Amino acid sequence: MERVFDEELKSLKEKLLRMAALVEDAVSLAIEALKDQKEEPAREVLQIEESINLLDVEVDEGCMRLLALRQPMAGDLRFITSAMKISSDLERMGDLAVNVAELALELAKLPLLKPLIDIPRMARLAQAMVRDSINAFINRDEALARDVCVRDDEVDALDDQIFRELLTYMMEDPHTVQRAVALILVSRNLERLADHATNIGEDVIYLVKGKTIKHHIDKKRENCPPEERA
Amino acid sequence: MERVFDEELKSLKEKLLRMAALVEDAVSLAIEALKDQKEEPAREVLQIEESINLLDVEVDEGCMRLLALRQPMAGDLRFITSAMKISSDLERMGDLAVNVAELALELAKLPLLKPLIDIPRMARLAQAMVRDSINAFINRDEALARDVCVRDDEVDALDDQIFRELLTYMMEDPHTVQRAVALILVSRNLERLADHATNIGEDVIYLVKGKTIKHHIDKKRENCPPEERA
Repeated sequence: MERVFDEELKSLKEKLLRMAALVEDAVSLAIEALKDQKEEPAREVLQIEESINLLDVEVDEGCMRLLALRQPMAGDLRFITSAMKISSDLERMGDLAVNVAELALELAKLPLLKPLIDIPRMARLAQAMVRDSINAFINRDEALARDVCVRDDEVDALDDQIFRELLTYMMEDPHTVQRAVALILVSRNLERLADHATNIGEDVIYLVKGKTIKHHIDKKRENCPPEERA
Repeated sequence: MERVFDEELKSLKEKLLRMAALVEDAVSLAIEALKDQKEEPAREVLQIEESINLLDVEVDEGCMRLLALRQPMAGDLRFITSAMKISSDLERMGDLAVNVAELALELAKLPLLKPLIDIPRMARLAQAMVRDSINAFINRDEALARDVCVRDDEVDALDDQIFRELLTYMMEDPHTVQRAVALILVSRNLERLADHATNIGEDVIYLVKGKTIKHHIDKKRENCPPEERA
């Protein structure tokens, strides 16, 4: 029983690592398609997303088996429920990479609006956040998890900057509207992808510390009268 | 023990119902702020979101207690893990309503681009999906859950239509760019909100049938060679 449990746990970690690596690949390919106006890498993203989806279901089923197999102790219980959430986050990152790939396919048919610098930079930041958030989970590394959460501000700032720049393009030349809107949406999708990595970072801190930092809840609870919390 | 379990389960359902009602309120207020260019309802959305966040943490903690309290049977286990996912979905819907409220605050300072018809319609569709998805969960109503999933196509079509219409505005008059982009983002946020209701619908079907329809996985597994699924 113990051995089955440990093996299932090990397989769970491997699958999450594999999902994270696939998310990174999907983002790289989507950005390659966008920068070089190529369709082939964008189509590969759709295939990768299917693999991510399959792994998500497998992780989910594995977690259910672990929960059913025996009554896990507090630490294991938290690890398993965190794994379920992290798998959902990775699955949604796959969806977001597909959105970027679809926007790249749309843009591949139109002249390049401008050489892309900030969007690939944002993608690299987001990819590193994904990688580090999963490593923080596997190694229960709270410091790394906090670092991921902090880096999200940098991605948000880049998203904002990209948004403002593209607005000026559209205002100056209506012919840029379709391409600029598509790039704004690319930027938003990458920003959301980084948000999901931040969610994972928060889950890891919860896992290690045994308390939630989501929504800075401790502070809010103090300020919130008990009747409002029912 | 049994009685504690049943009470915790009952409280869990009540909290999810309350979260769903708060999400509906938040969407109504955000759309009111948008249509009438008023700031007050938009600010209320921010308060509602805090309540949703607190409930999310309470549901999460309640589920952990239920899992720790005793080794739940297959049906209960699935119910509890579904409740955790549904709570996350509702919490993210709260974030999306806040995004809409913030866009409404930005637009309240500018002249109205056009009388809003399709966006409020989309919001009503999304609200009904939220309500029905939670009722489907509480009553284990598979037919209602499937209905929610089907209605998502209608929301997607509206989002697409709104997007195309706003593109033409921007191309014809660069002065509309900022407002049109903001409305495109409102529409995307509502579309994502409906996606989360669809996620809940899928979870309910999984709960009732005991198998996942996420990603139409059965079909894909058949097509997918075993070595690719490792």
